[in-house]
Amino acid sequence: MLVPDKLQHLRSKMTALGIDACVIPSGDPHTSEYPAEHWKIRDWLSGFTGSAGTLVVGLDEAGLWTDSRYFLQAEKQLEGSGIELFKEGEPDVPTYAEWLCDILLPGRKVAVNGNTMPLSQSRALAGQLRSKGITLDVNFDVADEVWEGRPAIPDKMVIIHEDTFAGATRMEKIEFVRNEMRRHKISHYFTATLDDIAWMLNLRGSDVPFNPVFHAFLMVEHNNIKLYIDPHKLTAQTAQKLAADNVSISLYDEIYKHLQETPHDSTVYIDPDRTTVGLYNAFPSKVTKREGLSIITALKAIKNEKEINHLKQTLINDGVAMVKFIHWLEENVPTGKVSELSAAKKLKSFRAEQPGFSGESFNTISGYAAHGAIVHYSVDEESNSTLKPEGLYLVDSGGQYQGGTTDITRTLALGPVPQQAKTDYTLVLKGHIALAKAVFPQGSRGVHIDLLARKALWEHGLNYGHGTGHGVGYFLNVHEGPQSIRPQDNGFEMQAGMITSDEPGMYRTGQYGIRIENLVLCKEKMKTEFGRFLSFETLTLCPIDKTLIDKKLLTTEEIDWLNQYHQRVYDAIAPKLDDTLQKWLKDKTTPLN
Amino acid sequence: MLVPDKLQHLRSKMTALGIDACVIPSGDPHTSEYPAEHWKIRDWLSGFTGSAGTLVVGLDEAGLWTDSRYFLQAEKQLEGSGIELFKEGEPDVPTYAEWLCDILLPGRKVAVNGNTMPLSQSRALAGQLRSKGITLDVNFDVADEVWEGRPAIPDKMVIIHEDTFAGATRMEKIEFVRNEMRRHKISHYFTATLDDIAWMLNLRGSDVPFNPVFHAFLMVEHNNIKLYIDPHKLTAQTAQKLAADNVSISLYDEIYKHLQETPHDSTVYIDPDRTTVGLYNAFPSKVTKREGLSIITALKAIKNEKEINHLKQTLINDGVAMVKFIHWLEENVPTGKVSELSAAKKLKSFRAEQPGFSGESFNTISGYAAHGAIVHYSVDEESNSTLKPEGLYLVDSGGQYQGGTTDITRTLALGPVPQQAKTDYTLVLKGHIALAKAVFPQGSRGVHIDLLARKALWEHGLNYGHGTGHGVGYFLNVHEGPQSIRPQDNGFEMQAGMITSDEPGMYRTGQYGIRIENLVLCKEKMKTEFGRFLSFETLTLCPIDKTLIDKKLLTTEEIDWLNQYHQRVYDAIAPKLDDTLQKWLKDKTTPLN
Repeated sequence: MLVPDKLQHLRSKMTALGIDACVIPSGDPHTSEYPAEHWKIRDWLSGFTGSAGTLVVGLDEAGLWTDSRYFLQAEKQLEGSGIELFKEGEPDVPTYAEWLCDILLPGRKVAVNGNTMPLSQSRALAGQLRSKGITLDVNFDVADEVWEGRPAIPDKMVIIHEDTFAGATRMEKIEFVRNEMRRHKISHYFTATLDDIAWMLNLRGSDVPFNPVFHAFLMVEHNNIKLYIDPHKLTAQTAQKLAADNVSISLYDEIYKHLQETPHDSTVYIDPDRTTVGLYNAFPSKVTKREGLSIITALKAIKNEKEINHLKQTLINDGVAMVKFIHWLEENVPTGKVSELSAAKKLKSFRAEQPGFSGESFNTISGYAAHGAIVHYSVDEESNSTLKPEGLYLVDSGGQYQGGTTDITRTLALGPVPQQAKTDYTLVLKGHIALAKAVFPQGSRGVHIDLLARKALWEHGLNYGHGTGHGVGYFLNVHEGPQSIRPQDNGFEMQAGMITSDEPGMYRTGQYGIRIENLVLCKEKMKTEFGRFLSFETLTLCPIDKTLIDKKLLTTEEIDWLNQYHQRVYDAIAPKLDDTLQKWLKDKTTPLN
Repeated sequence: MLVPDKLQHLRSKMTALGIDACVIPSGDPHTSEYPAEHWKIRDWLSGFTGSAGTLVVGLDEAGLWTDSRYFLQAEKQLEGSGIELFKEGEPDVPTYAEWLCDILLPGRKVAVNGNTMPLSQSRALAGQLRSKGITLDVNFDVADEVWEGRPAIPDKMVIIHEDTFAGATRMEKIEFVRNEMRRHKISHYFTATLDDIAWMLNLRGSDVPFNPVFHAFLMVEHNNIKLYIDPHKLTAQTAQKLAADNVSISLYDEIYKHLQETPHDSTVYIDPDRTTVGLYNAFPSKVTKREGLSIITALKAIKNEKEINHLKQTLINDGVAMVKFIHWLEENVPTGKVSELSAAKKLKSFRAEQPGFSGESFNTISGYAAHGAIVHYSVDEESNSTLKPEGLYLVDSGGQYQGGTTDITRTLALGPVPQQAKTDYTLVLKGHIALAKAVFPQGSRGVHIDLLARKALWEHGLNYGHGTGHGVGYFLNVHEGPQSIRPQDNGFEMQAGMITSDEPGMYRTGQYGIRIENLVLCKEKMKTEFGRFLSFETLTLCPIDKTLIDKKLLTTEEIDWLNQYHQRVYDAIAPKLDDTLQKWLKDKTTPLN
């Protein structure tokens, strides 16, 4: 079935149901960043497979909205589909809500599957449509209506994340959650967020590539916890352990029915950004609702001491894999037999040698030369290019380990590079160091310190279009909320115990891309009469390519930071290497002077 | 009448009208930062005279909410009043809306005078109260009910701001406004904002101390402009000039009636932050409303070339006054006859010698030693202290001139100072310079660059509790929107042509205060493939006290900035001084090396 045929089929259903347009977001009932195939109706209908994008189908026209990461890909994939591409963020490009208000007359009806759209988003959409007299129906399941051959919900087995790695037992975490529930004066706390559920229950899954989560819903009451999950995903032993901690099991699909049965005198806490409107609407209207950041999302962002210690060990191991990889690259690129794909594969094999490794934390970005300038480059057989002993190579990768999740980017000179690349690289490094060295008062948010990573670039008329830092899970999603460091303020404060990436970059289209990324731990630095001040400790350990540095552009303090960092890298990693690699690493980490 | 008696009187009125609590903000029908005495019902009722604060009176209890600037003053002034002080921003202090939700049962009624509360604020308040089943009545004019001996609305005469200074004629400005109206597709643009009205009509007034504005409302249509004003404020000549530009006059009080008569097919543009709910409610509900930043507020923030040139000249003159003042201080402080009050008076007399001077732009902050640590210190006969030839003196002052409004702070060593003061001063100076040298992409907001002014302080565990920069009017209010540089994001971008203050500070309670403030002009710096980049040009010209600088803490770039700045100061100001002062200024501006 071709895209135009699929759309035709959908439109006939729409006409029959009196629907004038339907919105098809790339969501699932868990507001996941990366939904399982089962929910990828937008991909199936439109042919566009980017991770972010919204399809809107009217009776005569259709549009797809996506961001700059996917403009090229979307153009290619939408060709001949009859779907117009709307480039979000470009001047004069309407949002899809504005577009709908434009093409539809008052009195018309827009539909969406409320089980795949967050409450806050559907409220905003409904508000905009209402101002034009257009109604929003949130009960139209497009996939149900038209998707033939739809993949099933994944049924992978759930595993236990052992207490020794988790840092706190299931019962302890349940008590943390209930403490917060008492503070919020609520009787029920509901979450559909997959990594929230995995965290509290010390369970992990593999339903989604790279994200060790499993499909479930969770309702916590003061005397009762219900996990909604396909019971076949649990071994008898896991089920027993859950029962021992008073976690009872219900069927995944029963959630909507059970929510409808919530007693009317309950006070339920939900996160409007992390709960779909479909789930929200399932609660009886008489139930009192409190809204705010998901309790577990807030708790799990603050890593405990055991988690931090495991992560530090994990980052040494991950650093060993990275060092072996960079050394291997140096040896093998000149043979002409290394490609973007084979390099990524080799890197995975080095990680796989490390203790506790269970897979990659995302699809490795392995971008040589101009490919490095494509921020979310995903190499495939078609695009795969050979690495030559010249120019820049950008590799952004990470691993899932029982003792934590890693995410690191290094940009390497594979041989001679133009002077401009050295200048650019050094400016990115200055930004990386400025953020790594940041000191800021408690209460600061990412928006307040994002500048540090960009200042040196801005002064040269340069910039990058992505955020500077994202939260990172602990043997969980590599992108984890609530904090982030970017020019967009999401309202959440940086707090001691949070793990965040520090990854400024710089991209010259058609030439090369540069990004330097470490994970940093937020810590209390000092307390004065002016308040508490926080700072970062860099956790990631791997050499930063010195051959790309233009030393003239660095201050003494910046050179000191780099030299001290390289000393730490050598001290931690060298003991795990053989003589050859030790010598190689020594050279890579000798001080700049 | 004592405060408890006044409150008793108010409560009897409330009981008679079925009102359970009333909110008394410090506002006027123009959302002015500094309302005229006529609207200071909160001051009259509570005895608290700070510029910011909200009184809430319940049937049995009353509270006053204000910010840290006024904690001490409010404590003193509320003593014996029976009004509880709520310190905004302190931990566990409820907002007044939360407090109302706490003390009132569902079904109760809160009242406010909608003619003194911005629409956006009343919407937020009504929403919070509604969530507890409490209603908000916006039609209760407390002052009307209880204020005996209420001062009249000021009736000062309006003067013409001559075209040569205004930079654009009234007709040109009307056309700018109408262009924006066409862009927004609206038939009516309404503003109650006094400096907006003064700007568009090239008129000035003196109804409010320091702010050269007059009380009026303005309605702009495509073929018609109505100014609502007490006609006695206009000379025959001014009235004629307005008539010649097709501006018709209506009585100030008629605005509510006229708004009610707005044709139902109109599309009216209003600013919800700058229009009271009382004015908003006067429009027929059938009229289409568009909301956004007031059109004139946006236009007048971007100074035109003539305004900028006049302001540059004005800042040279203002610098001459400052130089004479600092020299006078040096000569006279050792006599023991200079006080905070007499210094402020002397400074005003130096300004009064300058061409185009029409008054001060705010009440001079003249704070010696510990008084300098009180951020909004207002010296009076009681607090007035003598300046001694030791320690720090902070003076924050400005003038209103036909050719612009000035605002400058200098911190001076009057003799020996502790080493800590030099460290603190140098860190504040580093912040001042970093912001003055900022380069940032178009689209940046104040929140994105505020860090620059704080970074050096944060690294030493120091901070200041106020914003870093505010917009400045042109022969208008010294605080002018929409832009500001502070950790709170107000959503408005920095744009070329904006004048903003750069004023980091540092306050040691009981010891001294430090602030260094210049006005800076935002300009386009460069355009690259990564976009347009903006930077600042420092406009204020006056020496920065070198004796307070710890040179070890400055980088070469910072020293260069200071030396170049001082060269500019000398070159511009010396020609206007006699020999003695020229020599003195030469010394104050010799390079650090």
